[in-house]
Amino acid sequence: MISREDVAALDAADPLAAFRERFVFTDEHRIYLDGNSLGRLPIATRDRLRDLADEWGDRLVSGWPAWIDAPTRVGNLLAEHVLGARPGEVVVGDSTTVNLYKLCSAALDVAPGPLVTNRDNFPTDRYVLEGLAAQRGVELRLVDDIERGLAGAAVAVISHVDYRTGEIADMRALSAGRARVIWDLSHSAGAIPIALRDAGVELAVGCTYKYLNGGPGAPAFLYVAEELQPRLRSPIWGWFGQRDQFAMERSYDPVDGIGRFLAGTPGVLDLAAVEEGVRLTAEAGVDRLREKSLALCELIIDVHDAWLAPLGFELGSPRDGERRGSHVSLRHPEAWPICRALIERAAVIPDFRGPDSIRLGVAPLYTRFVDVYDALDRLRGVVERGEQKLVSAEKTRIT
Amino acid sequence: MISREDVAALDAADPLAAFRERFVFTDEHRIYLDGNSLGRLPIATRDRLRDLADEWGDRLVSGWPAWIDAPTRVGNLLAEHVLGARPGEVVVGDSTTVNLYKLCSAALDVAPGPLVTNRDNFPTDRYVLEGLAAQRGVELRLVDDIERGLAGAAVAVISHVDYRTGEIADMRALSAGRARVIWDLSHSAGAIPIALRDAGVELAVGCTYKYLNGGPGAPAFLYVAEELQPRLRSPIWGWFGQRDQFAMERSYDPVDGIGRFLAGTPGVLDLAAVEEGVRLTAEAGVDRLREKSLALCELIIDVHDAWLAPLGFELGSPRDGERRGSHVSLRHPEAWPICRALIERAAVIPDFRGPDSIRLGVAPLYTRFVDVYDALDRLRGVVERGEQKLVSAEKTRIT
Repeated sequence: MISREDVAALDAADPLAAFRERFVFTDEHRIYLDGNSLGRLPIATRDRLRDLADEWGDRLVSGWPAWIDAPTRVGNLLAEHVLGARPGEVVVGDSTTVNLYKLCSAALDVAPGPLVTNRDNFPTDRYVLEGLAAQRGVELRLVDDIERGLAGAAVAVISHVDYRTGEIADMRALSAGRARVIWDLSHSAGAIPIALRDAGVELAVGCTYKYLNGGPGAPAFLYVAEELQPRLRSPIWGWFGQRDQFAMERSYDPVDGIGRFLAGTPGVLDLAAVEEGVRLTAEAGVDRLREKSLALCELIIDVHDAWLAPLGFELGSPRDGERRGSHVSLRHPEAWPICRALIERAAVIPDFRGPDSIRLGVAPLYTRFVDVYDALDRLRGVVERGEQKLVSAEKTRIT
Repeated sequence: MISREDVAALDAADPLAAFRERFVFTDEHRIYLDGNSLGRLPIATRDRLRDLADEWGDRLVSGWPAWIDAPTRVGNLLAEHVLGARPGEVVVGDSTTVNLYKLCSAALDVAPGPLVTNRDNFPTDRYVLEGLAAQRGVELRLVDDIERGLAGAAVAVISHVDYRTGEIADMRALSAGRARVIWDLSHSAGAIPIALRDAGVELAVGCTYKYLNGGPGAPAFLYVAEELQPRLRSPIWGWFGQRDQFAMERSYDPVDGIGRFLAGTPGVLDLAAVEEGVRLTAEAGVDRLREKSLALCELIIDVHDAWLAPLGFELGSPRDGERRGSHVSLRHPEAWPICRALIERAAVIPDFRGPDSIRLGVAPLYTRFVDVYDALDRLRGVVERGEQKLVSAEKTRIT
């Protein structure tokens, strides 16, 4: 079993170690393993928000020329550094839910037919599809095996990384069939290398407030492969998608390119926060982040095998790093009270996912090897002392 | 003709004068008459954004219990103080465009039929309707006279205050017919008293970044009368509209009440900014704001008649205050270059609206009587000296 000294040595040798200083830490004792739900506040973001408020206060409406391109500017940053897409293929704005609705509706317009997704896909993805199935009178197939489920489907929605198990779906293989796949990159963007163009992906959406550290409820991104853009239309025709936007008299005539998927006026404050978050990820580089994430997750698994498996835990994520995103789920019949006890009594912040999983997310920009080691040491202590019997059973959580 | 001393006396007697100190001013020489496009930065908002960033940095995911109710909390504040609605009838989130799409789609679900709006309604409102008409195969009627246009229509979208002329539509009368009217309150919310319930309004949306000072691209509000809520469904089924949101396994089952019109995760930073803006309006009281706004606009009209009409200006807004919102449009054949010259050479910030209108918006929370007087004095000087001949003709503007 690896010692804490060995683990500290991993941090000392970590080429990304200095990025931790770029984030706000208010409590050095607390160990945060939920960056896969809400990423930390970058110092640059705190400063940028202050500057942006000042800009609003000073420049007022004349600030707009500098703000108006934020959805495409931040989109291009994501395209280049995070998504493996071309400039002009990504915009940031609206929520993941709204963006998924737009793309799914647009895809059904050009190829009506059955919808398919995993039975246990993230709820909002399923709900969007349920709604569209009802509205369009098409079938929604909820399947256990998405690869088989794609047969005969017109449009599929697949999460690149499963929000519970952390399992990575085979983007290239699943994109190669006849069903048009919309990828939800919420749990992979910024955590694992993504090469949308190279993998033949046509459509994708994803969240910026997890590994990209965009802030609570930050706007989402939307990707449409260049070739497909002229053929697709957002169902929501809005003035930010309009050609010659300020010639107010005309009928709707969407711009060429990805801008046609914008709708209303974009939230400038939120976009600035996303931009700073993405910049940090770009600076570190997703390949290096992935390398560290793999090592951190392997440490979780090794320590789990040594300390936690004897206490009734089971690994709920793939053991093979190639098939696993940036979080590890540990299953235990008492997962919920253990999770509460960890938070309340041991200052470790994981995430619970029903029915029986504790998600431990590592965010390689700021998670250290000693954080993982100490968190699992505290987890072991909590369970050995039976502290999960001492906490309240109330369940309220957010992803 | 009123003198500057008389005008200064109006400020001295203004019961709302102190509210100006609650906003950030960086340039006392510049006169901002475009709060109807983008409101000023309240000092409380600047502070709140800093606090909220700190809250994110410190509380991380455990901040959500305090944040998650923001859409309904800010909605209730608007309902009570700005919209004349009941608690539980308003939410804040998404853009005006997306919210209009939701309500219009929901209204068509229960009563399919022709759509109608003013031919010169704000572009994004028209675009949303164009899109829905195309998708649903219903007719869209663009009319000059909305009162007559309502006959035979299933769903209408009407701006409460016309974004160009400032004219107020008769909410009660137009809501009384058989067509279901969705009101766009973007140019009236916070500027004139609104009594949605009293006027029999069923559906409304509106913007928070104008008179409500929510910040650039701040999220919009959405109102659905309580009685109608059980019968309507948003087309975008998302997890923030789901009953028992964190029981992740279930099919979509929208909450009772206004929450069913939420979709994805709300932007917490933007919502905090809206909340502070609305609080200021609530504190001042819309009735008092309206009283001051009427007086400010009357001053514009009086001075226009004395100084500007002789220079070729014409009033582009109703002369009768009862029929006018909180901006006055002045028409002039050279409106565009005059507008540029005013901004570039006289530090007065109005707004241009094609083809020939200069919009002068008064925001009674921070616009003084001397601001109006001085701005028009500078406008007179610009035109008398022919400075509109000296500016570039490039047109790029934003509302």
